[in-house]
Amino acid sequence: MKYGIVIYPPREVQDRANALRKRYDSHYSLIPPHITLVDAFEWENISDLTERIEKVAQTIPPFTLKLNKVGTFLPLSPVVYFGFEKNDTIYNLHEKLIHHVLDHEQIFKFTPHLTIAQDLSEQELYDILGRLKMKEYNMEVPVDRIHLCYQLENESWTVYQTFLLKENK
Amino acid sequence: MKYGIVIYPPREVQDRANALRKRYDSHYSLIPPHITLVDAFEWENISDLTERIEKVAQTIPPFTLKLNKVGTFLPLSPVVYFGFEKNDTIYNLHEKLIHHVLDHEQIFKFTPHLTIAQDLSEQELYDILGRLKMKEYNMEVPVDRIHLCYQLENESWTVYQTFLLKENK
Repeated sequence: MKYGIVIYPPREVQDRANALRKRYDSHYSLIPPHITLVDAFEWENISDLTERIEKVAQTIPPFTLKLNKVGTFLPLSPVVYFGFEKNDTIYNLHEKLIHHVLDHEQIFKFTPHLTIAQDLSEQELYDILGRLKMKEYNMEVPVDRIHLCYQLENESWTVYQTFLLKENK
Repeated sequence: MKYGIVIYPPREVQDRANALRKRYDSHYSLIPPHITLVDAFEWENISDLTERIEKVAQTIPPFTLKLNKVGTFLPLSPVVYFGFEKNDTIYNLHEKLIHHVLDHEQIFKFTPHLTIAQDLSEQELYDILGRLKMKEYNMEVPVDRIHLCYQLENESWTVYQTFLLKENK
C-alpha cells in the first residue's frame, strides 16, 4: 500500500490555501491542504510502520512554523507554494522520519511547503506567483501532531493514524 | 468549529465504494468513504473534546462489521448506502459518544451505513438501489480506530485526531 506522512495546518490556513487550490491545484479534491513530511512510499507491515513513526514523534516537541512567503519549484517542478521561515525542528522531524522510518536516503532536498498550485503551464504558474508575491502573508502554523495517510485507487488520501508530538527524551 | 466522528473502512472497501460514489455521491470529493458515528456538531474547546472521545475509545474493544447489503433511507432521505449485519458494539460505541461526548439526545435512530449515493432524484436512487441489490456484497470491516474530523469552509473534512479502540475496563 502507498503511504505518506503529512502535517495539516490549522483550519484558517487551510481555508486560505483552498481559496487558491480550488482554481490552481489539480490535487484540490484528493487531499486537504497539507505540508508533506514524507512523500508517497510503499510499505507492507502497517503495525511496524506505526511503531516506527510513534517512536520518532516522541522525540520531537511541538513547534510553530511561520508562513511568510509564496515560492515555486520552477523550473524543476510545476508547483507554487506557501513557504515558511527557517525552522530547525521540522527539518529534524523530516530527517528522523526518513532515517528511522524509511531507512533510506531521499533524492530531493527537503523544502517544507504547502502546495497551492500545480500541474498548470509554466506561464500560468509564473503569473500566479507574480500576483501572489504582491500580497503579504503572515500566518502561524502550530504543529503538535502528524498524520500517516494511505492512498486509495482514485489517488485520494485517507488518514490511517495521528501521532502527537511529545518530547520524551 | 464543526466536527464529526467517523470510521474509515479498509482500502478495498473504500475503493469499492468510491467506484459508485464517483458517479452517484455529491460528497465524493469532500471526504473519503466512511461510516459516520457522530454527525456534524459544533464544539469550542478542542482539548476537552479529544479527552472525552479518548475516554470512550478506551472502553470499546476492536470489532468487525460485516458489510452485506445495500439499503436506502428513502423516502425520508435521498441516500443509498452499504449496510451491515447487526452488531452491538458499534451501537454501544455510538451511544457512548452521544452521551459522554455530546451530552445530548440524538434526533434520528442510528443506522450504521456507508453512503454510496446521495442528492440524486428519487427515481435515480431507486434505479441504483435496484441494480445494486442484484449483486452480492460480502466484505469485512475490522474497526480498531475512530477519527475526529473538522470541516473546512469548502465543506471538505480534515482529520484532527485518531483514537485507537482498546478495552481498558
